[in-house]
Amino acid sequence: MTLTTEPEPYRLTATEALANFRSGALTVEQYARSLLSRIAARDPVVKAWAYLSPNLVLAEAKRLDSIPVDQRGPLHGVAVAVKDIIYTRDMPTQFNSPLYENDAPKVDAASITMLRLAGALILGKTTTTEFAATSQGPPTTNPHDPSRTPGGSSSGSGAAVADFQAPLALGTQTGGSLIRPASFNGVYALKPTWNAVSREGQKVYALIFDTLGWYARSIDDLRLLADVFNLQDDDDDDGDGGDNPRSGKEDGFSIQGAKFGLCKTMVWSHAGPGTVSAMEKAASLLREHGATVEEFDLPEHTADFPAWYDTLLDAEGRVAFLPAHRLDKTRLADHLVGHVENRRGSSKRDQVRAFDSIAAARPVVDAILARYDAVVVPSVPDEAPLGLGYTGDHIFNSLWTAMHTPVVNVPGFQGQNGMPVGVSLVAPRYNDLRLLAVGKKVGEVFQAEGGWKPQD
Amino acid sequence: MTLTTEPEPYRLTATEALANFRSGALTVEQYARSLLSRIAARDPVVKAWAYLSPNLVLAEAKRLDSIPVDQRGPLHGVAVAVKDIIYTRDMPTQFNSPLYENDAPKVDAASITMLRLAGALILGKTTTTEFAATSQGPPTTNPHDPSRTPGGSSSGSGAAVADFQAPLALGTQTGGSLIRPASFNGVYALKPTWNAVSREGQKVYALIFDTLGWYARSIDDLRLLADVFNLQDDDDDDGDGGDNPRSGKEDGFSIQGAKFGLCKTMVWSHAGPGTVSAMEKAASLLREHGATVEEFDLPEHTADFPAWYDTLLDAEGRVAFLPAHRLDKTRLADHLVGHVENRRGSSKRDQVRAFDSIAAARPVVDAILARYDAVVVPSVPDEAPLGLGYTGDHIFNSLWTAMHTPVVNVPGFQGQNGMPVGVSLVAPRYNDLRLLAVGKKVGEVFQAEGGWKPQD
Repeated sequence: MTLTTEPEPYRLTATEALANFRSGALTVEQYARSLLSRIAARDPVVKAWAYLSPNLVLAEAKRLDSIPVDQRGPLHGVAVAVKDIIYTRDMPTQFNSPLYENDAPKVDAASITMLRLAGALILGKTTTTEFAATSQGPPTTNPHDPSRTPGGSSSGSGAAVADFQAPLALGTQTGGSLIRPASFNGVYALKPTWNAVSREGQKVYALIFDTLGWYARSIDDLRLLADVFNLQDDDDDDGDGGDNPRSGKEDGFSIQGAKFGLCKTMVWSHAGPGTVSAMEKAASLLREHGATVEEFDLPEHTADFPAWYDTLLDAEGRVAFLPAHRLDKTRLADHLVGHVENRRGSSKRDQVRAFDSIAAARPVVDAILARYDAVVVPSVPDEAPLGLGYTGDHIFNSLWTAMHTPVVNVPGFQGQNGMPVGVSLVAPRYNDLRLLAVGKKVGEVFQAEGGWKPQD
Repeated sequence: MTLTTEPEPYRLTATEALANFRSGALTVEQYARSLLSRIAARDPVVKAWAYLSPNLVLAEAKRLDSIPVDQRGPLHGVAVAVKDIIYTRDMPTQFNSPLYENDAPKVDAASITMLRLAGALILGKTTTTEFAATSQGPPTTNPHDPSRTPGGSSSGSGAAVADFQAPLALGTQTGGSLIRPASFNGVYALKPTWNAVSREGQKVYALIFDTLGWYARSIDDLRLLADVFNLQDDDDDDGDGGDNPRSGKEDGFSIQGAKFGLCKTMVWSHAGPGTVSAMEKAASLLREHGATVEEFDLPEHTADFPAWYDTLLDAEGRVAFLPAHRLDKTRLADHLVGHVENRRGSSKRDQVRAFDSIAAARPVVDAILARYDAVVVPSVPDEAPLGLGYTGDHIFNSLWTAMHTPVVNVPGFQGQNGMPVGVSLVAPRYNDLRLLAVGKKVGEVFQAEGGWKPQD
């Protein structure tokens, strides 16, 4: 194979790879071979893949190369890793569950259908915690330190993107399963507005929380997927005045003169030194670049949110894991058996109260978020902990998941052990594209001056 | 084949069939052959099946007969028809869409896994409107008058149960797709509380509305499925007092002394003579049997509900049908193309307002419903209309679907053309089992004295 680009093709972002395909500097097959070489070299350490068939990937790459230029899709040839709770008709889907070893459903999830129609090259299935619903890790390691977790449940997706084994990856978030691995691995992630993207054909944990999202090493790459999945923002021109500071900012956003919120949330006591420092530095850098940063607390009546979330997650898990429990509860994670058997002892009334309280909080939180170009919140308690057994805590993520708001993890800081730490940007529901535009400028600053670069 | 029971096996309810299997009076194979004969005789008229393989059914029946008695599940041998938007690993799933002709996903939906583990005999796939999302009928006819629609989108499921082609059937409801066919065909249906039953592995239309439910010719049969799917009511013993009139009524419910609500809803102007008469007669019969019946109106601020519902359904459909639109919009129903292309011109802000307004109404409506043993509401505008093209209007159902409350259609009345008309009973979320208990007594009265019996 002749490498026709510098750096090696596997290091290209999706946006860069597309440019190389368009110019003819790179074929999809060459690109696939480069990624497969990277994977072969790194898989013994990182272990990001639940399933990967080089022959299948190369056959598909050749098929893509044979498509006439004028018939190519917007993601033509770009490699995408897929979390192994999403159905792929040509690869097994195993959910990291012994109940589904080598399970081959022969159907594509809605997200895979859309990726294939856009010309994406589906690389393989990435590791996850069991059913994307436990904090017990697969053997995947953090690319920046193999003694540390890459986070979960989208473990392999986060690690593969950080390790240049794929430019893009699909993940899912029910608590913090997209944003936490993004922070631990030092990459970008977008958790879109809830139900802005179809989740048909993937494992359900909690219908009211589950969100499909994605990883990349640049905001431009996240934007590519946002367009493929047809994310659209709230309409600026609905005639109710110009009091939305985000209006019209998608293209021309500048940190100079922007207005950020900063919200430590009701669970700030869980923040360790890496996150405390990252939040402080984030605020300082934004101010130094000409923005105002206003710290605020959420309304007192949302203080019970963590209890509502836990009650509702448990109740939704009871429904989602009943079939697996019936199949063989001895081969189901104890945590999930606990959901099904209602070990918490919640009543249906508790569950309904939690559901309705969270629903009532959404417009309240949206209205607060709408005062700002974006709100800076913690992504994680701290850098990735040592050990592979425990994938970390979603305590800083579940609020925004439940509020259905878009969230972008922006890397750029580091913890006491030199591991990446990100912070998140949040905006009201259906402000995904504007949030990406803000995240792009913010990410440039954080990466340049925050102390950690994604490609370190 | 020797018929060992009277009436013919195909006429047995699920509860009756189970008793015959347990006593040894009937084998599953004999039962399956009887149902297949009924289907063969009636299919040319009713056309309820999208897929049915007699060989597959008989092979499965023989397998079930070979299972030792002490290893048989709670639905051992009972035949279940499955709406053709639910994945079945051994039968195609086609969604009544030209995009999915002969599509064979080789995976079971969560509901099918649970049915198989309970020993059910999956008979075949029943007809639906396209993606269970249009009101354009399949060619299925109403068993009581082949010139009339059986309703939709669960067209085949409702017709098959009414016509003794299956004792049980799975359907789904996003607007009124379970309750409307139940009323048109003169059978019982339960739409359980939203997300009380896993919907994994089935077509999504609107995540926040879609509900899996089922048809039967008796309340006892609905209860069988409620137990298989682990429906559980709100806890009576949560220590907040005995002001819930439904508490403890599951077993000993009596119409004498019971308290019913009657709610014509904000769309009562859509009721035709069959429904006006059924609602009046329902109230009279309940009063004659010793109940109080109190008519009430919903709070004024819910008057905009129909607009909220339409806005949100359209927005959720935009996400759900984007993959099909990308595959080939020329082979997608125009109504669904309209969702994807936002022909209504709704803004994201409209959509969020509708979502939050509906969410805010749920606890308000629950509190009103909780004053009664059950609330009587219309099931349909009137008896099944003439013609097979249009499956009817969900105007009386979408409110309760969106409120996430359980709903039972109770047959027993008739329209001006002698076709069945039902009324629905509604209760607060997670009162499914108590609602069935109330529905059983109410159904006995309506069937005996309302003017129409399910087996007419």
